[in-house]
Amino acid sequence: MFPLAAPQVHEALSHPLAVFLLQLITIIVAAQLCGWAMRRIGQPAVMGEILAGILLGPSFVGALFPAFNAFVFPPASLHHLQMLSQVGLVLFMFVIGMELDLSIIRKKARSAMLISNISIVVPYALGVLLSFVLYERYCPPGIPFHAFALFIGIALSITAFPVLARIIRERGLAQTRMGSIAIISAAWGDIAGWCILAVVIAIVKASSVSSSVVTLGLAAAYVLVMLLVVRPFLKKLSTEKTNDRQVKRSTIALIFVVLLASAYGAEVAGIHALFGAFMAGVIMPLEWNFRHLIISKIEDVALVMLLPIFFIFTGLRTQIGLLSNPSLWAVCLLITLVAIAGKLGGSALAARIAGESAHDSLAIGALMNTRGLMELIILNIGLDLGILSQEIFAMMVIMALVTTFMTSPLLSLLERVYGKAKE
Amino acid sequence: MFPLAAPQVHEALSHPLAVFLLQLITIIVAAQLCGWAMRRIGQPAVMGEILAGILLGPSFVGALFPAFNAFVFPPASLHHLQMLSQVGLVLFMFVIGMELDLSIIRKKARSAMLISNISIVVPYALGVLLSFVLYERYCPPGIPFHAFALFIGIALSITAFPVLARIIRERGLAQTRMGSIAIISAAWGDIAGWCILAVVIAIVKASSVSSSVVTLGLAAAYVLVMLLVVRPFLKKLSTEKTNDRQVKRSTIALIFVVLLASAYGAEVAGIHALFGAFMAGVIMPLEWNFRHLIISKIEDVALVMLLPIFFIFTGLRTQIGLLSNPSLWAVCLLITLVAIAGKLGGSALAARIAGESAHDSLAIGALMNTRGLMELIILNIGLDLGILSQEIFAMMVIMALVTTFMTSPLLSLLERVYGKAKE
Repeated sequence: MFPLAAPQVHEALSHPLAVFLLQLITIIVAAQLCGWAMRRIGQPAVMGEILAGILLGPSFVGALFPAFNAFVFPPASLHHLQMLSQVGLVLFMFVIGMELDLSIIRKKARSAMLISNISIVVPYALGVLLSFVLYERYCPPGIPFHAFALFIGIALSITAFPVLARIIRERGLAQTRMGSIAIISAAWGDIAGWCILAVVIAIVKASSVSSSVVTLGLAAAYVLVMLLVVRPFLKKLSTEKTNDRQVKRSTIALIFVVLLASAYGAEVAGIHALFGAFMAGVIMPLEWNFRHLIISKIEDVALVMLLPIFFIFTGLRTQIGLLSNPSLWAVCLLITLVAIAGKLGGSALAARIAGESAHDSLAIGALMNTRGLMELIILNIGLDLGILSQEIFAMMVIMALVTTFMTSPLLSLLERVYGKAKE
Repeated sequence: MFPLAAPQVHEALSHPLAVFLLQLITIIVAAQLCGWAMRRIGQPAVMGEILAGILLGPSFVGALFPAFNAFVFPPASLHHLQMLSQVGLVLFMFVIGMELDLSIIRKKARSAMLISNISIVVPYALGVLLSFVLYERYCPPGIPFHAFALFIGIALSITAFPVLARIIRERGLAQTRMGSIAIISAAWGDIAGWCILAVVIAIVKASSVSSSVVTLGLAAAYVLVMLLVVRPFLKKLSTEKTNDRQVKRSTIALIFVVLLASAYGAEVAGIHALFGAFMAGVIMPLEWNFRHLIISKIEDVALVMLLPIFFIFTGLRTQIGLLSNPSLWAVCLLITLVAIAGKLGGSALAARIAGESAHDSLAIGALMNTRGLMELIILNIGLDLGILSQEIFAMMVIMALVTTFMTSPLLSLLERVYGKAKE
């Protein structure tokens, strides 16, 4: 009797919705398991989710059990995952933007600004230098040197604000001077990094100098509209609604429309939709007492269901097998070392110059060195734009994993050597 | 200078992500505007969202401004909307399942059960009779009569539990005897309707009698696993966690996995993924004090962003232009009248037999006659399965709109004639 059902069950198994559901199940389970395993060894859960992506990709599960990957992740089905992961990133960048409290940045810490700026400039400069080594052999054809160098600079100088914030919270450093300097520096670095990225994308996408000027003009117009029209409009709305404790459905719809329109405007202007989402988060009025309510609503769905999709999607694109000979691994090591020297070294140096103690300076450097998710987002943009080859992409992913992984042990080590950070 | 930018902006406009963002913006804005307009004339907002879908579809905006629809909804992009609307429906059916409180059904109201059963049987029987009229001329070739008749029966006997619940709440009827009878009847009707639908899908999808037996066997096995394995497992978990007020991220992940796995199991077993999602909601332990927390988390994202996508998607499939001659409109009228006679008449009759007053009986009939969203979900399943032709689909959508639209005015009329319902 059962064989009769076989073709019909088989057909049901390959129905797009069934495939998609199975993908979501696989992704959530893998992300949770790896996240749990990472927390056991003192790493942030997000580290595990990223690892889950790499493990499920062609480098491990795909190589060991190709039938499994062909069944769960058939190539034709991946565009749904890609679109959904984009939606997840849009929501995520929006939350990140909302979590930035610009007033704190303004109030506090000339020294944080100094550290932040130096901690971008140093790795950026090292990244540009590194490009001279990489460009000849690893840059895809047709990409001019300046675009490649500008992009590698960003890839080395970005900090994972969310991962850093979570590490600081989990280690109880949020109230320390060192912790708040690191958070402010990372926040400012995020803004600066994404602005530079927007410029780079505008330059890369434009076919000629004059059209890149147009794109930059459009981008500037977009930013001005957001700051001078949308922001005051929302602020005016927010003062009317401050008394409501419940968020109305029409307000949620309005916020979604602002978010989506900003992402759309940024994408069409020639900078990236994610920059638009981030920008929409930043301009949300702080007075709005339900900013945190919106965050809590979006966060769980976006972080539990959609972000792991992005990690898996990144993992499925990462072919560590491409690094097939020692010289490629040597380049990978070089990239990682330059990244660490630039970000950890640069930040620590800047903190020392700004008058922080030796321990605090090194700890700030260690924290700023966390690349995490942000790096992966930027690497995917680079791969999509054709600036990064598959090899460089894989190397950079490994660099992101290593620098994210080393933060927690490094902080523990510093604590053992210097004693706990002071309040 | 600007013409130089034209090709590159044009390219950005047709990037899949840009198209998708524009679709989401259009959908949310249209749904909110129409929802607002409907509330102004005393209709539930969901009525407006459904109308927005029809308006944006080929019947109105598509016919008047074909360039707009070709730009915003190019056919090649629709599968993303379809997939996302499926995800939205999965989340929605899960919430519906969770909102059903089976213990209330058990406690209360023999009469509600009687009303519920009669209010399914009468329109179902009328639907089967109607099929004799429709089958020859409007059934797509290759569909056997019994499958067509069984499906039309369901299409006429379904009630929109969520719309009904919202109307009852908005009119302050939730505490009246009449209101609670209507809610319980609709809830029980939902369960019965979806179970019958699962059987019908199993029969239609199976190519032969023996394989439909296999599908029914698989479906029964699936239901048994959910009730006898998954439910006790969750119940055991819930007693451990009752004290937590905050929902842990791992718990949310677990709930998503149960939901997705149930949807997947139902889809693969040959009944529909939405039945699986509904079932997963029903078996969530009631003791779990964060059942409502999960609902609140899912509801806003799912209802504001994803459900309107489903309505638009339905609207894009609804070609009212197909009803091009008076005889087709006559058939459409016949379907609508039979649907009203069966559901409104059947429920009112049953309520009167159960001893309710004349006003309450008619009001219960009017409430049960609300087809709303549920009907559209079922019609889409019918269209996907090939049971419904485009013509029947369009007629049935109109029937759903008419029966949903008439509920509020009818209740107001009854109030004016008989006076307000008693507590």
